[in-house]
Amino acid sequence: MGITIGVFDSGFGGLTVLRELLPLTPGAHYIYLGDTARLPYGSKSQTTIARYAVESARFLQARGAEHLVIACNTASALAMREIRESVEVPVTGVIEPVVDAAYHRHPNADVLVLATSATVQSHAYRLHCAGRGLRASEKACPLLVPLVEEGWVDHTVTRDVLRVYLREALTACSPEAVLLGCTHYPLIAPAIKATLDELDSRAEVIDSARATAIAIERAIQLSHPASAGRATFQCYATDSTEKFAHLGSQFLGQPIPAVELLDLGG
Amino acid sequence: MGITIGVFDSGFGGLTVLRELLPLTPGAHYIYLGDTARLPYGSKSQTTIARYAVESARFLQARGAEHLVIACNTASALAMREIRESVEVPVTGVIEPVVDAAYHRHPNADVLVLATSATVQSHAYRLHCAGRGLRASEKACPLLVPLVEEGWVDHTVTRDVLRVYLREALTACSPEAVLLGCTHYPLIAPAIKATLDELDSRAEVIDSARATAIAIERAIQLSHPASAGRATFQCYATDSTEKFAHLGSQFLGQPIPAVELLDLGG
Repeated sequence: MGITIGVFDSGFGGLTVLRELLPLTPGAHYIYLGDTARLPYGSKSQTTIARYAVESARFLQARGAEHLVIACNTASALAMREIRESVEVPVTGVIEPVVDAAYHRHPNADVLVLATSATVQSHAYRLHCAGRGLRASEKACPLLVPLVEEGWVDHTVTRDVLRVYLREALTACSPEAVLLGCTHYPLIAPAIKATLDELDSRAEVIDSARATAIAIERAIQLSHPASAGRATFQCYATDSTEKFAHLGSQFLGQPIPAVELLDLGG
Repeated sequence: MGITIGVFDSGFGGLTVLRELLPLTPGAHYIYLGDTARLPYGSKSQTTIARYAVESARFLQARGAEHLVIACNTASALAMREIRESVEVPVTGVIEPVVDAAYHRHPNADVLVLATSATVQSHAYRLHCAGRGLRASEKACPLLVPLVEEGWVDHTVTRDVLRVYLREALTACSPEAVLLGCTHYPLIAPAIKATLDELDSRAEVIDSARATAIAIERAIQLSHPASAGRATFQCYATDSTEKFAHLGSQFLGQPIPAVELLDLGG
């Protein structure tokens, strides 16, 4: 048996992290929990978010997770300390890996972080970037999640919205890297890159899903010998397993069989 | 003392109903509850929505409400029976009034209902319309709420999104009336009307906020003598009173002083 890894998000977005993890970690078994009954976390207080995230982390540990991935920017920004204190296994969030990736590729650079309003208001990216000597501008892009969930990843409206957001952001900074600070955004990474090109920015797009998966791969190589075989996964959702399976498969890039309904209360 | 009326929504949208109610009901006092900690209801199961709505209805009754307005399409579509069974005061939802208004203006007509995905999936509008001899097409418009919440009510992107949704809807029907089946949509009613004109539809836009306010005015005229003086209101939110006051004032069309934080659990 390979390692069991718990992956947590408030909804579907974290499946972009799982999508990157599956091919990188042969033999691993993943337990994914989407707290869909209580999403979005972004509009909730820090106390509430920490309580929800801790409940989910404890559930995943109780189901045998030996490593936790907090594949949720809001919880990574606002509740990492509480989560780490509540479990006995290592916990990796999505913010540190992508900031590390940006740092190693563009030390001392100006970077632009695209994220939801809640993540921007937390300034978690700016703080982590400052700790690595990166100067971060943060731009809230609240329409991108609904556009991705509508499936308009190649739509002209999405390009128009990106043009508005990126033009506003690029008047304030000239970044060498653009960090995707939301796990929904990898699905529109090509549109983001194309819009940057159109606006004469040469910034590299760095994807938190990919960066987090690479960080996890490295972390478990240290603690667990490589196993053979394909990685497997089981998904839990706290509401509407049908919607989870349907919408989630677009994020995971493959069908999601047998989602289990979980009641965390509330 | 005039009548005390409780108004409930999962968030801010119901403030468009309160906005229509205030000038129509002199002397009334309103208690508005936005269950912002648990929004959006649309992604939750019927059982969960009914439980949340009943908790809110009981809170409003306990605070002295003599009439309840369920200014939330999702709860009106999925939980009216449970709400009515849980309190001893009359309860008015947002669906029956707008369907009644459409029926009186356009009997036996084809109508188009614009709403969120959850409301469309419930087919509550189609059922209520069928009961009045109206043939309803229902069109889910999931991007409109985030566009309104972004404040892009006059934005070209919003017009582009409306063009996509309305063009799709009008290939399937030729409505005499368009019913706004979401309490966010009154803020973009002018853009909806302009887009219908552009697409050569002569449909009248009927607004559920306005229709519901008129229904309440009539209902309380029967039970309560008219009072003098301006109507007053007190707002409660279950999370982030600052955000409620800020975003809510756009829906209410006036500042919202002293929002109180309320803990309903969960």
